[in-house]
Amino acid sequence: MGVVVQNIARADKALIARLGAAGVATVHEAQGRTGLMGARMRPIQQDLTIAGSAVTISAPPGDNWMIHVAIEQLQEGDVMVLAPTSPCDMGYFGDLLATSAMARGCKALIIDAGVRDTRDLRKMGFGVWSTHVSAQGTVKETLGSVNVPIICAGALVNPGDIVIADDDGVCIVPRANAETVMAAAQKRLDAEDAKRQRLAAGELGLDIYDMRPRLAEKGLKYL
Amino acid sequence: MGVVVQNIARADKALIARLGAAGVATVHEAQGRTGLMGARMRPIQQDLTIAGSAVTISAPPGDNWMIHVAIEQLQEGDVMVLAPTSPCDMGYFGDLLATSAMARGCKALIIDAGVRDTRDLRKMGFGVWSTHVSAQGTVKETLGSVNVPIICAGALVNPGDIVIADDDGVCIVPRANAETVMAAAQKRLDAEDAKRQRLAAGELGLDIYDMRPRLAEKGLKYL
Amino acid sequence: MGVVVQNIARADKALIARLGAAGVATVHEAQGRTGLMGARMRPIQQDLTIAGSAVTISAPPGDNWMIHVAIEQLQEGDVMVLAPTSPCDMGYFGDLLATSAMARGCKALIIDAGVRDTRDLRKMGFGVWSTHVSAQGTVKETLGSVNVPIICAGALVNPGDIVIADDDGVCIVPRANAETVMAAAQKRLDAEDAKRQRLAAGELGLDIYDMRPRLAEKGLKYL
Amino acid sequence: MGVVVQNIARADKALIARLGAAGVATVHEAQGRTGLMGARMRPIQQDLTIAGSAVTISAPPGDNWMIHVAIEQLQEGDVMVLAPTSPCDMGYFGDLLATSAMARGCKALIIDAGVRDTRDLRKMGFGVWSTHVSAQGTVKETLGSVNVPIICAGALVNPGDIVIADDDGVCIVPRANAETVMAAAQKRLDAEDAKRQRLAAGELGLDIYDMRPRLAEKGLKYL
Amino acid sequence: MGVVVQNIARADKALIARLGAAGVATVHEAQGRTGLMGARMRPIQQDLTIAGSAVTISAPPGDNWMIHVAIEQLQEGDVMVLAPTSPCDMGYFGDLLATSAMARGCKALIIDAGVRDTRDLRKMGFGVWSTHVSAQGTVKETLGSVNVPIICAGALVNPGDIVIADDDGVCIVPRANAETVMAAAQKRLDAEDAKRQRLAAGELGLDIYDMRPRLAEKGLKYL
Amino acid sequence: MGVVVQNIARADKALIARLGAAGVATVHEAQGRTGLMGARMRPIQQDLTIAGSAVTISAPPGDNWMIHVAIEQLQEGDVMVLAPTSPCDMGYFGDLLATSAMARGCKALIIDAGVRDTRDLRKMGFGVWSTHVSAQGTVKETLGSVNVPIICAGALVNPGDIVIADDDGVCIVPRANAETVMAAAQKRLDAEDAKRQRLAAGELGLDIYDMRPRLAEKGLKYL
Repeated sequence: MGVVVQNIARADKALIARLGAAGVATVHEAQGRTGLMGARMRPIQQDLTIAGSAVTISAPPGDNWMIHVAIEQLQEGDVMVLAPTSPCDMGYFGDLLATSAMARGCKALIIDAGVRDTRDLRKMGFGVWSTHVSAQGTVKETLGSVNVPIICAGALVNPGDIVIADDDGVCIVPRANAETVMAAAQKRLDAEDAKRQRLAAGELGLDIYDMRPRLAEKGLKYL
Repeated sequence: MGVVVQNIARADKALIARLGAAGVATVHEAQGRTGLMGARMRPIQQDLTIAGSAVTISAPPGDNWMIHVAIEQLQEGDVMVLAPTSPCDMGYFGDLLATSAMARGCKALIIDAGVRDTRDLRKMGFGVWSTHVSAQGTVKETLGSVNVPIICAGALVNPGDIVIADDDGVCIVPRANAETVMAAAQKRLDAEDAKRQRLAAGELGLDIYDMRPRLAEKGLKYL
Repeated sequence: MGVVVQNIARADKALIARLGAAGVATVHEAQGRTGLMGARMRPIQQDLTIAGSAVTISAPPGDNWMIHVAIEQLQEGDVMVLAPTSPCDMGYFGDLLATSAMARGCKALIIDAGVRDTRDLRKMGFGVWSTHVSAQGTVKETLGSVNVPIICAGALVNPGDIVIADDDGVCIVPRANAETVMAAAQKRLDAEDAKRQRLAAGELGLDIYDMRPRLAEKGLKYL
Repeated sequence: MGVVVQNIARADKALIARLGAAGVATVHEAQGRTGLMGARMRPIQQDLTIAGSAVTISAPPGDNWMIHVAIEQLQEGDVMVLAPTSPCDMGYFGDLLATSAMARGCKALIIDAGVRDTRDLRKMGFGVWSTHVSAQGTVKETLGSVNVPIICAGALVNPGDIVIADDDGVCIVPRANAETVMAAAQKRLDAEDAKRQRLAAGELGLDIYDMRPRLAEKGLKYL
Repeated sequence: MGVVVQNIARADKALIARLGAAGVATVHEAQGRTGLMGARMRPIQQDLTIAGSAVTISAPPGDNWMIHVAIEQLQEGDVMVLAPTSPCDMGYFGDLLATSAMARGCKALIIDAGVRDTRDLRKMGFGVWSTHVSAQGTVKETLGSVNVPIICAGALVNPGDIVIADDDGVCIVPRANAETVMAAAQKRLDAEDAKRQRLAAGELGLDIYDMRPRLAEKGLKYL
Repeated sequence: MGVVVQNIARADKALIARLGAAGVATVHEAQGRTGLMGARMRPIQQDLTIAGSAVTISAPPGDNWMIHVAIEQLQEGDVMVLAPTSPCDMGYFGDLLATSAMARGCKALIIDAGVRDTRDLRKMGFGVWSTHVSAQGTVKETLGSVNVPIICAGALVNPGDIVIADDDGVCIVPRANAETVMAAAQKRLDAEDAKRQRLAAGELGLDIYDMRPRLAEKGLKYL
């Protein structure tokens, strides 16, 4: 506790953008179904997808002091990811902090706790995925850390990892794997396009994926 | 487990449409307050009402194989209703399966588990009521059944039953009762229209429903 | 149980309006972080703020009879606040009751239980903050009370207290404190405006609030 | 609602006893993994197993009137199974009702709601599986039904079905299937005894169940 | 915040003892079903009943500083009642604090948060009713208050109120009402003894309470 | 997925035993309040403390195949720690698997999912900390991994890490830190003994920890 790591490596911006375009569900599949945060992490807005580099925050329950510290570390395209050290539903973040973060090029917050001023945040176009919404404010008394590894909603996040978030949830891609994962994601996207056309034309998954023999073998009976 | 019932009876389409127009709250009252799914079943979209014939799916936790099997059984106007055999928040269903279901005339999914690609599903106009949203994918390893009786979010659903879903939740009308229930619902709707006008004009429910004597008898005191 | 208090004092309407404009988060801070309802209290609509005088309802679980009684007590600008005497997720309130309440000038309902007809309620512009949405109806068998002190979602509400509700939740201001709280809220709003401009210009909270010395004293280390 | 079915068929007592001795986990497996109530159903005592014939109760939320009605229908060896028509955590049942039920030979209660006087109930040796413990009492205002089919904690229960409950939860065996299920359960018990001895001697499940080839085929790698 | 009220009135000890002997369910009924804490408040031990005078603690989330302050205010027979100002599951209290509290004659803690060292607490015979168990420690940074009115698990507690806790939960009796409530509780206890004997002898509640005519009037049908 | 790491390093057994004797709360404090699993992880038995080396299992939801694989890797004094790759409340583990694990010297299971046969497990003296109890069985269809890093109930667990579990929860000590953590824990234990005696004698924490000046400085007022 009480550490701020200042220089963190970040992934290539074009690559981050492509991962964002692929979306959470596809990227999650493409990296072997790892890195997904728990389903309790929900967006406060609808139909927004973001992708960026994680600036991580480990904060005490009910204490948002470290967000001020983290904002100084933000660069264009970063996403703040905050995990409290004990479960907490209080509102760590509102429109003032968002104003400050946006002034430094940050586009979103992922937080395993609460936020407030959600109407203003939506108006400002600042993306938020949180586990709670609460007007309950926090104190500034106890240190936490910035840019250390954290576990957020069940996912391990290292500073500089790629964060992808959309209506389905939040997925973390370790920085070192970004290229490989994007290549796998691209393959899935290409395959899905073809399948989507066949399915839309009325072909069945049972036939496209050749499922009938294996279903029969397992003993499926048609009455 | 491992059974697909292929020929199920369905209710009359005009009758189904009328039940849908009456809405969940009215239909639920009209059939003696039975058939309502638990309040954890929530729509992923707002202001959509659907009604259709249930094609039921009993699926293992984390396994969506049976949805492919069920899609082959779909007819115009059907609604898929899926209950896992053990609680599960994984994303069983996304835009590819919805594309396939829509190609067969299915308009909605009711699922006591998770879905993904919710933004795409909303864009496609495919209605979903689910208990979770999650990008977490499923496997295709274990058989379930299609068109057997299931218990979904606490409600018994038989294949061919009428499913009505709107912003208030999901209600099941047994096929055999559909006409009787609709007649009762119509009576309620007619009565509600009259009452709505009187209430809007400032008359009190206390007077319209003649509640004052019974309140006095129970001992209500005005201070 | 079984009591209706008919003449309750209400706060000044202009003052209520100003508290509403300040919003839940600011008012909650301004009164020393008291009066906030629990975060489980959520709006059924987005981007609506209301403020009004509380008409309180203590109701048995699954019994909405007292709402009819309460409606007779409503005046222009009132907000109904209902707490069941035991946890309950049933739908106590729908479009007919809202029609009746609106006819008397009531603008919103705060309820630690369920509501139904949410689509209609949104269309009517009647604001609702609830802990559940459910089509499940209630009975009219057992007395409760109107305009007695209640505990709603963890907050004490006295009849005539000021209720403020927006996307962040619901906050109660005791009537006697309304002027003092508004004065404190105004100070916060004025200060926030100045800070917002400086933050938007890229200045850091670390500097604006002079946090660096205290962080150093607590032992924060930059690596 | 408002119906009491007086003459229900019950299964053979020796058979019921044998199912109880087999226990919930074994019986649940033996009938194809069906009939298990949700895991929220927990015993108020430890190390007790019961088995009996279900006398079912469908009760309004917060109203225990029908328990009095049901007690008259009890016979030696019966188990009461109560499902509220809407979720409720109130205390429907305490030591007085247990005294009455025991006087008629009933040995246990399964309830998807709350109970009270749990210390006395344990002292009396009356078994309870419930989803809540609460001192909050109920009213006697609204009718429910006795000995109609109910859905309790997600399981369908018909009057006269066999109820088995132990520390693992509660399982329902349809009366008509009791003999077949017991035969399958006996086979499992016999097989388990043999396996238990081999496992206790240090043999591995990997070898006893011949899992190694299939694990290799699926691609398991040992590092 | 930041206030310690030092001289609080307490109820008569013999009266407190009698209320404890009556138990939570009876006392709750006797005072018109008010004062009960939410069912999430559970004992860490079994078969213990306590009763005492409330010393109340309003504490920030994750900060147990005020418990030290409260202990100085304890007198023989007091019970500490702690409510965090925002929901928190951390372990505020363990064996050292219990040692200190017991040295001053305090017998129990009621806390809408977590405790730790539960095994030691049980061994010491110090009673605890809490909503969580957690080894997660707290800080001592922010003031709260001692002996101010608090809302704990949904119940209003004033300093000096009588706290009764047993396996069924926790009930608060306002000091001023203690005699009246005990008189009503005694009546219930006397009536219950008589009823228990009749029920044990096989008489039915249907007859003892003369329920049959009202059930018939409501339309109950026997098939 | 699909990997079994066979040779893992383990900590010194005497050191592990000392950490176990210190207990979860003390060890958690001693390592800077890190490594604690979420409070939803609860023991199925009372008054048991265990400590051992983690053999980790990453398992698909509802699939316990990997437990069989893991058992072959167990050594005297190991503790199995299982995290499903998606939330799951099913019963992965019962008395047969426990028999097998005990035959290899394993003493406990930590599982972020369900177990069954809890009565037998208690009788056998096999320690279990789980998030659910459920008779619902699992399948053996999909690979997971053994002895890879996992996140279990919010804590990172590497194979060979020290697991400590008691009535307060579960704490993980990274193998490399074990000596340092134990040294810090010993200091705490020594200090606690001295403090316990002073507190038992009636001295106040306010004085022992010299809190009065800082409370005054923060503005605490005694009335």
